Amino acid sequence: MEHSLSIVNDLNQIRKQSPLIHNITNYVVMNNSANALLAIGASPVMAHAIEEVEEMVNIASALVINMGTVSKQWLEAMLLAGKKAKSKGIPVIFDPVGVGATTYRNKVASQIIKECKPDIIRGNASEIMALYEAGNPTKGVDSTMDSTDAVMVAKKLALKLKAIIAISGENDYITDGKRVNRVENGSAMMTKVTGMGCSESAIIGAFAAVNSNALDATTNAMATFAICGELASYHAKGPGTLQLYLYDMLYTIDEDIISNTIRMSYDI
Amino acid sequence: MEHSLSIVNDLNQIRKQSPLIHNITNYVVMNNSANALLAIGASPVMAHAIEEVEEMVNIASALVINMGTVSKQWLEAMLLAGKKAKSKGIPVIFDPVGVGATTYRNKVASQIIKECKPDIIRGNASEIMALYEAGNPTKGVDSTMDSTDAVMVAKKLALKLKAIIAISGENDYITDGKRVNRVENGSAMMTKVTGMGCSESAIIGAFAAVNSNALDATTNAMATFAICGELASYHAKGPGTLQLYLYDMLYTIDEDIISNTIRMSYDI
Amino acid sequence: MEHSLSIVNDLNQIRKQSPLIHNITNYVVMNNSANALLAIGASPVMAHAIEEVEEMVNIASALVINMGTVSKQWLEAMLLAGKKAKSKGIPVIFDPVGVGATTYRNKVASQIIKECKPDIIRGNASEIMALYEAGNPTKGVDSTMDSTDAVMVAKKLALKLKAIIAISGENDYITDGKRVNRVENGSAMMTKVTGMGCSESAIIGAFAAVNSNALDATTNAMATFAICGELASYHAKGPGTLQLYLYDMLYTIDEDIISNTIRMSYDI
Repeated sequence: MEHSLSIVNDLNQIRKQSPLIHNITNYVVMNNSANALLAIGASPVMAHAIEEVEEMVNIASALVINMGTVSKQWLEAMLLAGKKAKSKGIPVIFDPVGVGATTYRNKVASQIIKECKPDIIRGNASEIMALYEAGNPTKGVDSTMDSTDAVMVAKKLALKLKAIIAISGENDYITDGKRVNRVENGSAMMTKVTGMGCSESAIIGAFAAVNSNALDATTNAMATFAICGELASYHAKGPGTLQLYLYDMLYTIDEDIISNTIRMSYDI
Repeated sequence: MEHSLSIVNDLNQIRKQSPLIHNITNYVVMNNSANALLAIGASPVMAHAIEEVEEMVNIASALVINMGTVSKQWLEAMLLAGKKAKSKGIPVIFDPVGVGATTYRNKVASQIIKECKPDIIRGNASEIMALYEAGNPTKGVDSTMDSTDAVMVAKKLALKLKAIIAISGENDYITDGKRVNRVENGSAMMTKVTGMGCSESAIIGAFAAVNSNALDATTNAMATFAICGELASYHAKGPGTLQLYLYDMLYTIDEDIISNTIRMSYDI
Repeated sequence: MEHSLSIVNDLNQIRKQSPLIHNITNYVVMNNSANALLAIGASPVMAHAIEEVEEMVNIASALVINMGTVSKQWLEAMLLAGKKAKSKGIPVIFDPVGVGATTYRNKVASQIIKECKPDIIRGNASEIMALYEAGNPTKGVDSTMDSTDAVMVAKKLALKLKAIIAISGENDYITDGKRVNRVENGSAMMTKVTGMGCSESAIIGAFAAVNSNALDATTNAMATFAICGELASYHAKGPGTLQLYLYDMLYTIDEDIISNTIRMSYDI
């Protein structure tokens, strides 16, 4: 109940403040991320031109960096924006899509972490493992490892990077290195829709923009997203309708829905 | 009734001619814009390579330039395509997404307007204000100003630029600097779907391709889009399903639907 | 019946192996292609950075190259990836979107074919004609020619390029230059959704990854896609819902659905 109230409080603030979330993300999911943010009540902006990213960060309340289709010029924009966000003091969320799959991705992820010092990093278990052990190959952008296995690694990584580490999976785990929260909502069908994790990272940006406790903000965001996905899956006939119903749920989710659906554990 | 007939006439021509609409637009909405154009009966093409934009313009019936995720190389393509379109005499529609948010966007918008001389410019109230007064900061790409407030400014801008200026909002306003038309259809839920304005600009391209009266074409396009959005919202449970039902409506809209739903005023 | 079993066998293998399909495709359809691949059970990855495409190909089971929004840097990545795929021996599928529309597209298509030697090429009738006769102008990316007219040309092209040539249309035709298979399923409404052909090419990648007979793999992929589109159209109220229901169908299609719906002819 208390947990529901914390989520509801953040949701209300997002819908009241409509924080501007600056996304430098991948081509595949830009539309999804923007729609997820709009549905929940935030204001998305996608901008990557070197000439404007710092100025855009300056009017934003959070920055979400996603390296899904990264290339040289985009990396440059990410680094500029990330450093500006840190100097301004707004939260930086990093989604290391596909890290572990190629040497280039490992280098990009390392550089973003080193130079932008993200406050929150969200990935699947393989990606979080790959961040920890550069040598762990992933199978593209899907998880090939169970998320529970990666919790220990996530805790170590959180302490090392002084960041919140969030692992998406059948259960989601969120840790600051000491405490670990678990979200049990969700639906297996969500793995059959592209960009679910990326949209989740964008949603974390919205929660982090209104809640300065990064562990709580990330936990609340992931619980909200998982609940919406789960409820969407009840009516969906497949991943096509699931994606649309998920936006509908992000738009309609409220205190009653949350308290009736939530399954999670704090500080496990 | 007369107004309905003008819209229906344009719609019939679009479905008969299936005009090729060349879009140089942003990454977030490319898919949406293409789907909106296909649904209404036009033929979209997205192409931005410097090597081919002029040749593509040459076989197109209208050019839509949208600066939502503009960067240096894309701007170059926009300018090349825009100048070619003017020299060829096909309508140029410009969507100054997010103008006012950054210095770079202000510069880009000014350059496109100066070099491409768009026939029609569509934005939200903040964007139209920003085009008029370079110093008016917008909050990303959403409107933070009521559209009625901007009508006076739009009229001045239309006269100055010798262009149709269209403002999207709760009510839409379309002006050539002398006359102002108002479209009252629509749905507040449309603001929770990304790229609605961008799709509307694309649809204006389709109407302008078949109707040489740019004021009428823009008015008819915005009325069509607003009616479809409004009808889609009746069945939608949120912004996810709204977007899909909107495409369905663009595909099915006909004389009966228009005459039963339309709420607009000409020359207010 | 026998044909149904061949399709079902491929489907089962895709769902069992979840092959990684590397797509270097256009901005408009990236999301669609990824969703279509996920829905059917494959693992999509989109990556185009020069620094990583070869390494990504190295862990992939098929490469799909689509030139819909090609530009100089992307072409470079396509050529690198394509050559790597050939040297590694995984199937290369090429979708020559809009070839014939501009000189640049003709050059790009020729270069990709020459340097990457695709195993399978899928396009609409105009595109296949344009590949054969460089001088045949197309109207953007839609087909302006009936697919039956292009079958003769496709056979010649298949022999010349030693590749499977697939033509999408009211009926689909797939040929290795000697045999021609025809798929009769589908729905006219599919032409009102952007990226249908591109998603089909991506799906061919999934089938080619698990079936080394490229003619069978392509035929089975196109039959599956056409059946799913046809069944989706029965419930769709327009192109918006059609697209989503198509993903749902790709996710749910099974032996019963296939054997009850399939209309095709082998070796016509």
